[in-house]
Order: sequence, then C-alpha cells, then structure tokens
Amino acid sequence: MRIGAIEAGGTKFVCGIGNENGTIEDRVSFPTEHPQQTMDNVIAYFTGKGVEAIGIGTFGPIDIDPASPAYGHVTTTPKPGWSGFDFLGTLKKEFNVPFGWDTDVNAAAFGEATWGAAKGFDSCVYYTVGTGIGVGVYSEGKLVHGLVHPEGGHVLTRRHKDDTFEGLCPYHGDCLEGMAAGPAIEKRWKVKGSELPADHPAWEMEAYYIAQAVTGTILLLSPKKVILGGGVMHQQQLFPMIRQEVQKQLNGYVSAEAILNNIESYIVPPGLGDNAGLSGALALGLAAAGK
Amino acid sequence: MRIGAIEAGGTKFVCGIGNENGTIEDRVSFPTEHPQQTMDNVIAYFTGKGVEAIGIGTFGPIDIDPASPAYGHVTTTPKPGWSGFDFLGTLKKEFNVPFGWDTDVNAAAFGEATWGAAKGFDSCVYYTVGTGIGVGVYSEGKLVHGLVHPEGGHVLTRRHKDDTFEGLCPYHGDCLEGMAAGPAIEKRWKVKGSELPADHPAWEMEAYYIAQAVTGTILLLSPKKVILGGGVMHQQQLFPMIRQEVQKQLNGYVSAEAILNNIESYIVPPGLGDNAGLSGALALGLAAAGK
Repeated sequence: MRIGAIEAGGTKFVCGIGNENGTIEDRVSFPTEHPQQTMDNVIAYFTGKGVEAIGIGTFGPIDIDPASPAYGHVTTTPKPGWSGFDFLGTLKKEFNVPFGWDTDVNAAAFGEATWGAAKGFDSCVYYTVGTGIGVGVYSEGKLVHGLVHPEGGHVLTRRHKDDTFEGLCPYHGDCLEGMAAGPAIEKRWKVKGSELPADHPAWEMEAYYIAQAVTGTILLLSPKKVILGGGVMHQQQLFPMIRQEVQKQLNGYVSAEAILNNIESYIVPPGLGDNAGLSGALALGLAAAGK
Repeated sequence: MRIGAIEAGGTKFVCGIGNENGTIEDRVSFPTEHPQQTMDNVIAYFTGKGVEAIGIGTFGPIDIDPASPAYGHVTTTPKPGWSGFDFLGTLKKEFNVPFGWDTDVNAAAFGEATWGAAKGFDSCVYYTVGTGIGVGVYSEGKLVHGLVHPEGGHVLTRRHKDDTFEGLCPYHGDCLEGMAAGPAIEKRWKVKGSELPADHPAWEMEAYYIAQAVTGTILLLSPKKVILGGGVMHQQQLFPMIRQEVQKQLNGYVSAEAILNNIESYIVPPGLGDNAGLSGALALGLAAAGK
C-alpha cells in the first residue's frame, strides 16, 4: 500500500508516503506559509504519487466533528490566512481518496499506539513540549475528540515555590504552556533552554510543571502509557526528574505496578522519535483506508 | 426485561430491578457492613427474582481489567474486610447471568449518557462531590478504564487566595478531595456544609475548587457534558458560581458554543437526580445483557 501522510506544523509541513508497516518511504519538508501557497506545495508533492489514502495530523485548533459544517477547517489561529481555512476540503477537491483528519498530537498518540511506545496498548497520552504544549489522547482504542479536542497544554498549574515568573500564555498567564513551554523557559532564564546545562535548576522546575500535567492526566484518564515528546523533551535529564516527581505527587495513591515499580517504562519518550508526527499521520491515513 | 442493578456505596448498598427503558421497578437499601453479610443481603434480594443480567457500580478502588487475575475484586480500601474481596466472583457463584462491573461514578456517567443529562451524547464526565470526590468518564461512546480507572477526585488544586485550610486528604493533603469534599467543608468552617447559608463565602471557595477540576477536565478531555452530582451539589447555588468560574479560568480559549454561550446546559446536575447511581448500574446490566 502507498499511504500519504501530512504532518502540518505551525512552522513547517512534512509530507510523506508510507506503507501499512509504518515505514516512511519518502518525505519532503517545506515551511508553513500562507495556506494557498502551502497547499500548492502539498498538492504538488502528492500529485501522481498514487496514494490510496491521506492522513493529516495538523496544528490547530481545528474542527474534527464530522457533523459540523466547518469539519476539516482550521478554526481560530493568529497564523495569517489560516483562521477558518478549509484545509481538508482543499485537498479533497484534488485527491479522490479517503482522508484521515485529526490534531497533530492525536495523530502522534495514534502513531505511538500503532507502531511506537504504546504499541499493543489500547490507551496512551502524548504530550509535546516545545514552542507550545499540546496533548493527544487515545483511550479505550479510540482517539478522543469530544466537544472540540483535547487542549491539555493549558491546564492550570500550581506554582513552583522558587518561581516568580509571571507566565507567558496570552489566555491564562501561568498555565502549563505559559510556564513550561520553550518560550517560557527562555524568558524566565534569559537564555534558550538548549543552552542551559543539564544540571541547571531550570530543569527541576520544568520537571515539576510537566509532572503536574502528567499526574493530573493519570488521575483523570489512567492511561496505559505516557509519552513525552517535543523539542524540550530532548533534554533527556528531564525524564527521571519527571518520573520521580509524578510518584511524589501521586504518593502511592494509584495502586498500579506500572507507576509504583515500573515507571521507567511508563513515562517514556516517543518510540518513533521525531517521526511520531509523520508516522501518526500515516496511521490516520491507514485507518481512513480501512486497514 | 428484568435487569438487576447494584449501587454499592461505602455507606449503603442499593439493589434494584429495572427494565430496558431505565425504569426502576423495585428497590431495596441496606447499610454496607462486612462483605459476607452485605453479600448475603444482596443474594437474598436477587434470589428468585428472575433477572437476566446484573449491573454493579461500586465504591473502589476496584479491579476492572478483564485480563487481571483480580478482576472483580475490591483492591485497597480501609473499609474492614473489603480490601481484596472478590465482589464479582461471590455473586457470579450465585447467579448464572451476565454481569456488568464498573466504578460507581463510571456507572453514573453511563446512566446519564443512556437516560439522563447526557442522553444522545457520546461523551460526558460525572463528578460526585460528597464524602469524597469521584469522577466517571465516558468518552467516544466508551467508559474509560485504562490502567486502573479514573481517580480524578485527587487532582492537585491551586489554592484559593483566602484559604488557609491545610487539606484533609491522607495521601495528598490539599488535593481536590482534600479541599472540597464534604468533610473538608465541615472542618474548614467548623459546621456541616448543609448548615451554611447559601450566601456564605464557603460556597464561592467551593465553586472555585470544583471549577478547577471541571476546567482541567474540559482541557484534557473536551467532554460534551459535565455532570455534577453528590450531596454537596445539592447546594444549587454552586452551579452558577462554578459555571462562571470555569468561563473565567478558560478565558475564551476553548472556542465551543456550549462553553461560551450555553454553559447553563453544559455544566448541569444529574438528569437522573439521586437515581444516577442505580440507573447507571442498570445501564451496565443492560449492556452486559447485550441490549
């Protein structure tokens, strides 16, 4: 099978072609520009490639309610030209194949459950911690949509005792994204996170905030795997700190081996590495093709 | 059809018989005692009643993983005799019918989705705020189990600016349950919540904490309906305060009509009133019967 995959990010688009085993056979990447120009690039890439379906995992917020007149549209975004843009409809006009359509983070969660760190499990959550913070939720064998779609990057946090940073979120100030996304780290410490040494106190603080989100997710959803990806999570030293802080916050309350004794294999980086997004889009495409 | 329903609470058990329309035709209630005595009462009630299936919504924590050797057991509870008790197995020995088995709050969520406030929706969350705080999650047409089951009553809260109460949770101190369950209200204000007037500042504080849990749930799960039940929620004045606080906390970020403009019908009391638990158990029994 040849399945198309689109990882639509706020900064760049990655388009690829893969098969039913999750192998990405070809890929191309270009910057995210005005929607028409960006779509022209997408259409040019897939034209003549003979794909049987296309899966799209995209930045948002987007409309993923099939019953909505705006299904397939980007909804409200400050990104010029994208607010209200009919992303899915534009491509449907060009390619007469089934489409998968979901958020980038739901796609990543689905890719991880299909071929990655949560393979064989019927639930996982996927957090991306980078320029923003997003979360994809896969539960009881289904991606969670609900009223809109998960926006768990904006949960309120309890402030770290040593933290006086006011937070950067234009909506919530000191929500998770406002306190722990890449730009917050940079603003708080006056230097990019990637330039801070692994033993800098920034990381203990960062782990504290991310752990709160993970703890809250475990309590509300009880996922079988927690996957933490995105640029900030390239700081590998965060993982043991987050695991320890989650155990501290839960304090033995959730009586599950995975949390009490095997947390190293419970809170993990993406099994698909930086391919999680594109592989997720591929998995959405495969599902749309009915495979 | 005649379907058995068991609402197993920490203080009392309610057993009943209902039909496929959700009508409860008969019911009985008795105190929760040592498990064998309690089960004797349950067995005596259903014997000879000719039920085609039995649904159980129970206090927990419980094992709801069908692949687990302890499936059907109560796991860890301070309640004398109940820790490790094989609740489901004890009844299966007596009645050769299909059984539904889930937490009391998942059952309530399912009952509300079947016949109550979330009828016609494929997702809802059900919070009970009483002696403790529990949450049931129904998402994409399925009850959420995951690793264990939701325990969202124990999420961390951000402290109210006027609140110096240390919190009552033996595991987490000032988590949601520790700050906002009935015993926390009583200890903080030195009087039972039911004796506080509707305009007492206790309720603004209570609404603040419950709203945090609701806001976090909306961000992570995007449920199509949020149902708030339990003894504390008999204080009807809480609803408008919670709705307003949720809107304030979200600050327009989740762009959904239900939240922005119709929150009165989005955050609601149980449509089944105080029958939510027993009706939920009935819905579990019906599902087990394959209806």
